[in-house]
Amino acid sequence: MKAEIITIGDEILLGQVVDTNSAWIGQLLDSLHISIQQIVSIPDHKDLIYHTLSEASRRSDLIIVTGGLGPTKDDVTKETIASFFNTTLVKDEKVLEHVKSIFEKFGNGRAMPLMNYGQADVLACSEVLFNDVGTAPGMWVEHEGKFFVFLPGVPFEMKFLMENRVVPKLATYRAKEAIYHAHVITMGIGESFLAEKIADIEDELPSHIRLAYLPKLGGVRLRLSAVGTDFESIKKETEQFAERIGKRLSDHLVARKDVTIEEAIVEEFTRTGLRLAVAESCTGGLLAGSITSIPGASAIFDCGIVAYHNRIKEQVLGVQEEVLRDYGAVSEQTVIQMAEGVKKMSGAQYSIATSGIAGPGGGTVEKPVGTVWIAVSGRFKTITQVFQFRNDRQINIERSIAQALNMLWKLYRQDSVES
Amino acid sequence: MKAEIITIGDEILLGQVVDTNSAWIGQLLDSLHISIQQIVSIPDHKDLIYHTLSEASRRSDLIIVTGGLGPTKDDVTKETIASFFNTTLVKDEKVLEHVKSIFEKFGNGRAMPLMNYGQADVLACSEVLFNDVGTAPGMWVEHEGKFFVFLPGVPFEMKFLMENRVVPKLATYRAKEAIYHAHVITMGIGESFLAEKIADIEDELPSHIRLAYLPKLGGVRLRLSAVGTDFESIKKETEQFAERIGKRLSDHLVARKDVTIEEAIVEEFTRTGLRLAVAESCTGGLLAGSITSIPGASAIFDCGIVAYHNRIKEQVLGVQEEVLRDYGAVSEQTVIQMAEGVKKMSGAQYSIATSGIAGPGGGTVEKPVGTVWIAVSGRFKTITQVFQFRNDRQINIERSIAQALNMLWKLYRQDSVES
Repeated sequence: MKAEIITIGDEILLGQVVDTNSAWIGQLLDSLHISIQQIVSIPDHKDLIYHTLSEASRRSDLIIVTGGLGPTKDDVTKETIASFFNTTLVKDEKVLEHVKSIFEKFGNGRAMPLMNYGQADVLACSEVLFNDVGTAPGMWVEHEGKFFVFLPGVPFEMKFLMENRVVPKLATYRAKEAIYHAHVITMGIGESFLAEKIADIEDELPSHIRLAYLPKLGGVRLRLSAVGTDFESIKKETEQFAERIGKRLSDHLVARKDVTIEEAIVEEFTRTGLRLAVAESCTGGLLAGSITSIPGASAIFDCGIVAYHNRIKEQVLGVQEEVLRDYGAVSEQTVIQMAEGVKKMSGAQYSIATSGIAGPGGGTVEKPVGTVWIAVSGRFKTITQVFQFRNDRQINIERSIAQALNMLWKLYRQDSVES
Repeated sequence: MKAEIITIGDEILLGQVVDTNSAWIGQLLDSLHISIQQIVSIPDHKDLIYHTLSEASRRSDLIIVTGGLGPTKDDVTKETIASFFNTTLVKDEKVLEHVKSIFEKFGNGRAMPLMNYGQADVLACSEVLFNDVGTAPGMWVEHEGKFFVFLPGVPFEMKFLMENRVVPKLATYRAKEAIYHAHVITMGIGESFLAEKIADIEDELPSHIRLAYLPKLGGVRLRLSAVGTDFESIKKETEQFAERIGKRLSDHLVARKDVTIEEAIVEEFTRTGLRLAVAESCTGGLLAGSITSIPGASAIFDCGIVAYHNRIKEQVLGVQEEVLRDYGAVSEQTVIQMAEGVKKMSGAQYSIATSGIAGPGGGTVEKPVGTVWIAVSGRFKTITQVFQFRNDRQINIERSIAQALNMLWKLYRQDSVES
């Protein structure tokens, strides 16, 4: 089954929101072995919606449309799709009751705005996908042998409807073509060096298995994708190739499945009963957040101190006044004391400390914007590294986090060999 | 000038990476008054690349293509685009020297992989956009009256090339049609109530000014977009409407420009010399990170404590053992002591504390997953609120942050009236 995603809304084209819905749907469909041909974002314009729907239905079997179902006047989607399917809009009583009940609950006694009545209008030819978590219902339409799904753009409503309404319906129309993905997650080696190391294995790959390099800050994720008729046989074949590649890259291997380094750390630390604490300056809480975002993180994450100012570095982390005075907050000596300080005050075996000048302000000739010191303290020693990133605050923070996690992973692996 | 963005790469269709490039480019082009017609993501496939390029060049004047320029074998872009423009690939000596120099610097003495030589291959008909920050050069092609820009997909390389190479070139081809956007950022009022409140103003809008509702967690962002020939006159007209809408919504107004609530907080606190500290449990550092990501945050952010475990809540924040024992970590009493504790230990006038069960584990009958207590402590009082979110960890964290910032903004505004 071939699928396609259409996202409707000016706000995406203007860059005011990042389209995270499509990536989420992409992962979900991929896990169902449904391949996505195309993702397209278009504005709230009648003609473009019509044209895009008709193009998509020529190419694909399943068309998922998100956005354009809100109550306000910028939404022209429903009328346009009604005309596309040559049908009308009808009031759905169950949806209307639901919309009313939400307003009774959250409206603070105010009457429901008239335009919300329109949210109960659905395509006469559609099956309503009842939205328990919001006011805009989803719709499922079968038209000329193709499936169309219309969902609100609010991410958690879209996710609710995909998981609880769309996936169960799709299960009844399973694709005949099987797809299998195997993963080799690496860090600390560049894309082209990595490719040279495994060139001979790559050359052996049969035409129905493709290898993709997905570079990310700090590492490269390899994905082997196979298509075939028999799921079990392509799975076995693909995993054999992935296993060989993983062995070849063992010095840089993080995992043999599709996980992030954050997930790998949480999993490994949970398995081995280790705990982590962090002391952050330039990463401002986001290093802690990268770990605490992972389900189950509370088993391994102890505490984090965002010490933006020297007083906290001294008071809470025990960094010496003389060290801050003589070397400055952005220095090897300071990050060592921060890392060792937070480890000591917590119950953690491992700790990370960051201190740097994220920018855009705060740079000096000696320590320009992008200078970041990182220390990782483990069971046997404390390691440090200095980085010189560039000018963008957001990127400097992201790269600092990626490097900090890479350093942690490396030290953890060394320690595991030693212990 | 009409523009279109094409993103090439299987990883986006599989949802392994979120396409943040397009939103970034969208904002940049919007600021140049260039409107984006469509954003499309396609796989690394010859036919689809060819087809998409030719469709885009029918519709738009400027086509920006990102991705598909890496050194490894999954990249078929260059050959396909060469055939699209009916041209050949030639080796660019300056690029080759640059690629070699990067490998000398970062290759740890290893020879440059052969495939990296290919990165110096550029379209014979193109102007090379020299990439100071990476190995893949960008390319600028003028073809049948249209402009094509090819950029690597790595975000910071793409951004570097857009800002330093593409924008200066575009400046020489300015659009004749002017676009202007005005903004009204609100919080604490739902989309449809808001729409009812301003329905009469909206009805007065002339056809060349469109009003868009952009709901976000915790608030609605309104954008008025005008098109016309005279920039100054549409600017004046649009700002007048925006001003009226802003006044009508004054109880819920965050700002009259396109900022996030985080940016508004940093700006206001900087202006008034106030400082903020946070004590986080369920938000795990990301509440601190939402503020520290904003340039200039160091002027207002004091410190953050990520107190995942009770020991830290007691030791560092001074939460009483009895409170944790009698009411639990997720309770009004605990968040009050966390907020007041972090305020006291820091030099801040305002503080926020969060404690909740983000999930997926850790819920009980009394305190199910999604239960979150938030306290905000200010110059005159401490306020609290409990929320009952749903099951998804990521969403619960995001909503907690949005609500916490809303509470802070509200208290700050009340306090400002009182003081």
